[in-house]
Amino acid sequence: MNFVERKTIRKYKQEDIPAEKLEALLFQASRAATMGNMQLYSVVVTRSEEMKEKLSPLHFGQPMVKGAPVVLTFCADFNRFTKWCEQRNADAGYDNYLSLFNAVSDTLLYVQAFCTLAEEAGYGTCYLGTTLYNPQGIIDLLQLPRLTFPVATITLGVPDENPKQPDRLPHLAYIHEETYHDYTPNQLDIIYFFKEQLEENRKFVEINKKENLAQVFTDCRYTRKDNEAMSAGLLEALKHQGFM
Amino acid sequence: MNFVERKTIRKYKQEDIPAEKLEALLFQASRAATMGNMQLYSVVVTRSEEMKEKLSPLHFGQPMVKGAPVVLTFCADFNRFTKWCEQRNADAGYDNYLSLFNAVSDTLLYVQAFCTLAEEAGYGTCYLGTTLYNPQGIIDLLQLPRLTFPVATITLGVPDENPKQPDRLPHLAYIHEETYHDYTPNQLDIIYFFKEQLEENRKFVEINKKENLAQVFTDCRYTRKDNEAMSAGLLEALKHQGFM
Repeated sequence: MNFVERKTIRKYKQEDIPAEKLEALLFQASRAATMGNMQLYSVVVTRSEEMKEKLSPLHFGQPMVKGAPVVLTFCADFNRFTKWCEQRNADAGYDNYLSLFNAVSDTLLYVQAFCTLAEEAGYGTCYLGTTLYNPQGIIDLLQLPRLTFPVATITLGVPDENPKQPDRLPHLAYIHEETYHDYTPNQLDIIYFFKEQLEENRKFVEINKKENLAQVFTDCRYTRKDNEAMSAGLLEALKHQGFM
Repeated sequence: MNFVERKTIRKYKQEDIPAEKLEALLFQASRAATMGNMQLYSVVVTRSEEMKEKLSPLHFGQPMVKGAPVVLTFCADFNRFTKWCEQRNADAGYDNYLSLFNAVSDTLLYVQAFCTLAEEAGYGTCYLGTTLYNPQGIIDLLQLPRLTFPVATITLGVPDENPKQPDRLPHLAYIHEETYHDYTPNQLDIIYFFKEQLEENRKFVEINKKENLAQVFTDCRYTRKDNEAMSAGLLEALKHQGFM
């Protein structure tokens, strides 16, 4: 696959993914960089209808959860390493914030390596950002122990759609030479021009009766109120899992 | 490149990376999944000797920083999006913890997509975990504004070494079916057996006068004391950047 052509796939054929195929992809992905070669992640594989039914509301009913043959919940994991240390009479000091970030980093590098390999093998993936919206629900359902944390969910299957590729910002939007160069109003206008004039985005503005696209994001999609409520839940869950 | 053969490269030829080549790779990588298509990241490109000199101690003098033609600091970035919202009279509520995690997720997916593409193009990469050890120093040096945060540093260049590939855990170590299955002592022995009996790891145990490999990790490499001190610094820096 040419990565420049990649896109998210949300509709999958009713076709299973053989366990050995999935395991091979998950193993290959483990070649991604990892902190001190500790591999601070785990992945919970959901195939059963029963578990998909229970996961679905935790992801706000997004149809990919029930529609995909496989749902993968990638977790930051300092439990395995800590248990090994304890078994070897070693003082494992990984119940803290830096260790959380190290494990989150390992996990997300692993997730992207997996997605790239899975897409190269002909599968479609969808990244569910909702994993962080209600982590405690996912922790309870998947029985995630102390020092683990759900970081990302991927739905996976053989593509049954061929959607249009979404836009991306021009690369000068996010590349800075030597130091960060903050944005002038004129630069912001240029960076977001293409996105703002897209037909589908103009429609969102109209339907939601907003002045512009930015307000669709702040007032409808990702509101301050929701973000603050979910931030509190996220912090609570991190404490519950022993990372703070 | 076959991903299963990938490995970290720490020594690079004295050979520059053309700006247009680097920009093309950075742009291609932007096809990775991103939260609501917001692309919550920026990358600061370090090429000057002067900046490498200043970055080097912040990464504890690891020789890759001064030895690589290009050093890339990938930052979670809600500054650009927030500034755009403010310019459009939209109430941007992204100075919170959930938003930080969303931006960190975007950034790390982008990092791994970039590394895979760069390696496919024949470059070698090294992921510096030290970015999180002293974030405030990096923030100051790279002039990172509020609502940005350095998440990962990659050194990049044409490989000038061909090291042995390190070990990885057997995949059954981190794959769980339907729910997380915690590890029995016997499983831990099996999972870590290969790592523990490796010649180089036995030597680390001997040199450091420890009982076993786990103690090398907990007492020498990643100690409780260091982790706790650096956790405090990380939290301070996150507050400073407006995310808590």
